[in-house]
Amino acid sequence: MSSSRRAPDRRAAREGRSRAGRSARLAERRSRAPHAPAYITRRIPVFELLSEEGLDAIEQQAEWILSEIGIEFRGDSQALRLWRDAGAEVQGERVRFERSMVGEIVRNSLPLQFTQHARNPERSVSIGGDCTVFSPTYGAPFVRDLEGGRRYGTLEDFCNFVKLAYSSPWLHHSGGTVCEPVDIPVNKRHLEMVYAHMRWSDKAFMGSVTAPERAEDSIELCRILFGRSFVDEHCVIMGNINVNSPLVYDGAMSGALRRYASANQCTVVVPFILGGAMGPATAPGAIAQAHAEAMTGLALTQLVRPGAPAIYGNFFTTMSLKSGAPTFGMPEGALAYMAVGQLARRAGVPLRCGGAFTSSKIADAQAAQESADSLSPALLAGTHFVLHAAGWLEGGLTMGYEKFVLDVDRLGMMHVLMNGLTLDDNTLAGEGFREVGPGGHFLGSAHTMANYETAYYEPELADSSSFEQWEEGGARSAEARAFDRWRELLGAYEPPPIDRGVDEALREFIDEKKGSMPDMWY
Amino acid sequence: MSSSRRAPDRRAAREGRSRAGRSARLAERRSRAPHAPAYITRRIPVFELLSEEGLDAIEQQAEWILSEIGIEFRGDSQALRLWRDAGAEVQGERVRFERSMVGEIVRNSLPLQFTQHARNPERSVSIGGDCTVFSPTYGAPFVRDLEGGRRYGTLEDFCNFVKLAYSSPWLHHSGGTVCEPVDIPVNKRHLEMVYAHMRWSDKAFMGSVTAPERAEDSIELCRILFGRSFVDEHCVIMGNINVNSPLVYDGAMSGALRRYASANQCTVVVPFILGGAMGPATAPGAIAQAHAEAMTGLALTQLVRPGAPAIYGNFFTTMSLKSGAPTFGMPEGALAYMAVGQLARRAGVPLRCGGAFTSSKIADAQAAQESADSLSPALLAGTHFVLHAAGWLEGGLTMGYEKFVLDVDRLGMMHVLMNGLTLDDNTLAGEGFREVGPGGHFLGSAHTMANYETAYYEPELADSSSFEQWEEGGARSAEARAFDRWRELLGAYEPPPIDRGVDEALREFIDEKKGSMPDMWY
Repeated sequence: MSSSRRAPDRRAAREGRSRAGRSARLAERRSRAPHAPAYITRRIPVFELLSEEGLDAIEQQAEWILSEIGIEFRGDSQALRLWRDAGAEVQGERVRFERSMVGEIVRNSLPLQFTQHARNPERSVSIGGDCTVFSPTYGAPFVRDLEGGRRYGTLEDFCNFVKLAYSSPWLHHSGGTVCEPVDIPVNKRHLEMVYAHMRWSDKAFMGSVTAPERAEDSIELCRILFGRSFVDEHCVIMGNINVNSPLVYDGAMSGALRRYASANQCTVVVPFILGGAMGPATAPGAIAQAHAEAMTGLALTQLVRPGAPAIYGNFFTTMSLKSGAPTFGMPEGALAYMAVGQLARRAGVPLRCGGAFTSSKIADAQAAQESADSLSPALLAGTHFVLHAAGWLEGGLTMGYEKFVLDVDRLGMMHVLMNGLTLDDNTLAGEGFREVGPGGHFLGSAHTMANYETAYYEPELADSSSFEQWEEGGARSAEARAFDRWRELLGAYEPPPIDRGVDEALREFIDEKKGSMPDMWY
Repeated sequence: MSSSRRAPDRRAAREGRSRAGRSARLAERRSRAPHAPAYITRRIPVFELLSEEGLDAIEQQAEWILSEIGIEFRGDSQALRLWRDAGAEVQGERVRFERSMVGEIVRNSLPLQFTQHARNPERSVSIGGDCTVFSPTYGAPFVRDLEGGRRYGTLEDFCNFVKLAYSSPWLHHSGGTVCEPVDIPVNKRHLEMVYAHMRWSDKAFMGSVTAPERAEDSIELCRILFGRSFVDEHCVIMGNINVNSPLVYDGAMSGALRRYASANQCTVVVPFILGGAMGPATAPGAIAQAHAEAMTGLALTQLVRPGAPAIYGNFFTTMSLKSGAPTFGMPEGALAYMAVGQLARRAGVPLRCGGAFTSSKIADAQAAQESADSLSPALLAGTHFVLHAAGWLEGGLTMGYEKFVLDVDRLGMMHVLMNGLTLDDNTLAGEGFREVGPGGHFLGSAHTMANYETAYYEPELADSSSFEQWEEGGARSAEARAFDRWRELLGAYEPPPIDRGVDEALREFIDEKKGSMPDMWY
């Protein structure tokens, strides 16, 4: 492999980039740099919901599940062999684990914290510790905007969402399947999706997991972009592995998990539990189940390759008693996230949970309320990687353009929240009080002038004008303002530079792969 | 005073009440009783944002403000005399306080927790400790609904909101000025407002504070409803006292405060700070100022009558840098609430802060997001009394019908959140796992059946149906569904019983008062 493929040559890229008309945007981007870090470094405490005794009870229940009920690995003889070699009890496809075995495997070698490298090194993200990373919604077959309504997603939509995430200072990650590009054959989608992340963004991203060979293709594209030896030693891609809850890993998922782990790339292991269906209707039982499932997947990554990075995931949601439909943003989910955060800290693993969830079909009051109520508790819980942080509608079936930019605006606020309060002579404002005194006004004071610009988060989409101004402006809803905003962002989008040789090599690999197999549509 | 006026005779009232057509509603009300307590008893921890050192720094800044800058009591010679007698340094209307003096006065006699009695004893609320009480929005001159748009509030609107709050299992309190009834002369409004709370609800409520004599009228009406001696010994009404921030109490407010306190009734002392205008643009300074202001007002209640109940209030919000307009639901406000919660706990006083705030004009995504982001941190902060918990729009200028019922639905969720997770054999679901096992389905399992009905909060207004069902139903927003809901609630409203003699005495007092003075419209 040529040296030009090892890693993007940033100087060449800068020089090759047309400068005309960009200086203003660059200046703007630089000026807000201090407010737009590559990821959040948490400066507020986590919320400790349960007592140590409560956590013990859930952990013990998880250990009981692992030792008495066990987990099935279906259609993956290699996984079963790894478990047998590690000393687990394997009967058919059912695996049972001695108490504390799974936790010990995880503790022995799974990294507490790691870096996922982006092709722009300034955008590499740290996963774990005090860090929090926001990533767009994953996996929706539909997209929606105010003008076009709800429709199947296409590659154009996919690229649009990659560009919108790239444009936002508050999304740290480009995500994975930001929507399903259903105009591309199923067996070739992963190639175009990974390429879109590589080409239209310079943030970190996720690869395919729908089959082990698609996982392998995703990693191979990274080897072209980052260089083979760099990829072997550094995490540059993530695969999101769903458990087939309750208590089952299917072979496609555990196979993809093994591919990512063996390539030293990150797997996110996510029990997917709709309480009352794929798990108990009582949250504590569902949490114990999820803990057992997630820890088993994490342990498997370490059996494949000790030290491979991985993330403890959780996707738990509630159910409508009327209809059996999943509900989002409900209080039981919030409580579950907080308990899960504590369990992940005890286990010493990076955590993925939460997102801007809703079952609403549009970006209305329901959507905003449920999204706030599912994202906030995830942050309080100490979540390190938040998938689904922007765009989610309709239980994840739809990626919404308006919802996306509304969510992103709130993610900006979460940056401020996670930064906490800074206490010093300036913020305590002694000089201000001396100057203004009782009955005075701080607006024109020297202290206010000195702190004016950095004082408060300025939302992009919230309207704080007077009723009369708002009415004169057309009495528009937040959703209507969001419609303008995403089109404005796409209009102003400029792609990040990429080395031409690397780009050509990526396309060559993709076109060759696509040419090597017939289109499959299922 | 006749014995019939001492307290509502509940048996007589029940007997006098028409039974026809009510049994179904009563049964419904009884069946949900366990889920609809008179107030929330918190079972989750509070969020401790700041370290002890951080809290010390803010408290020290507050002490410095009190000793060096001081507080002005304008046009209230009695308040100045009370301060002078207590040993404060009084120069003109400016009062300065030795370090720790104010905190000691508060600590010596202010109740940590107290009961505000409702005329229906089952609805009496406990303020302080582990309890949380939700109350509607206060003070909006305008009302809004989807059909009628935004317009000035009337007595009919006022009564409607009292009825809606009465109908909700999730509002524990009837509130105060739920909207301004601008069709009633300014000097007579308080009488009709207090009467509406007494007549159309049986929950606890707030009285007038706009002038000391109106505060006195409010209390006098309580003496008719509850009996004079009962009122002297029990808290039955609250007055919400705004500080004229920065660092000023005006005479109308401190006068009303003294009336409530001398009658042994509750005052809520509320610094009203728009950061950058009535306080510093830096949150820590604004928090220190608010602490100094609130503690001074609380101490004054204790100088008037040691042991009188009072609540430490906080109303801090941020400002748009573009326009100078107040903004709501911003992260700086959330952080401030959490710090204020810690300060109130240190001072040993019940806390009022937060609410379902927004600057949006309608019940859209902005309104829901900002409301969630201002109510949730107040609950994490350990707030005991949440004013403005339902209905708030447009920075408090408008009380929204749709917003009201949307907010109330979320308050139901907050009941579940505050109840935490219950860990026992049933919720840990061992039997469920034995029954279902790997790859099974919990939906029909005995464990799910046994826990189905109590498992998850069922929101009234969230739509979790499929896209097709939602579209067939008219593709309606949460706001549109809320429009139906409040009209349905008002249509089903039935007034709580009241003793006829008490009701006549209330009207007699009100009509006599109203006849004794000319109408005033400002």
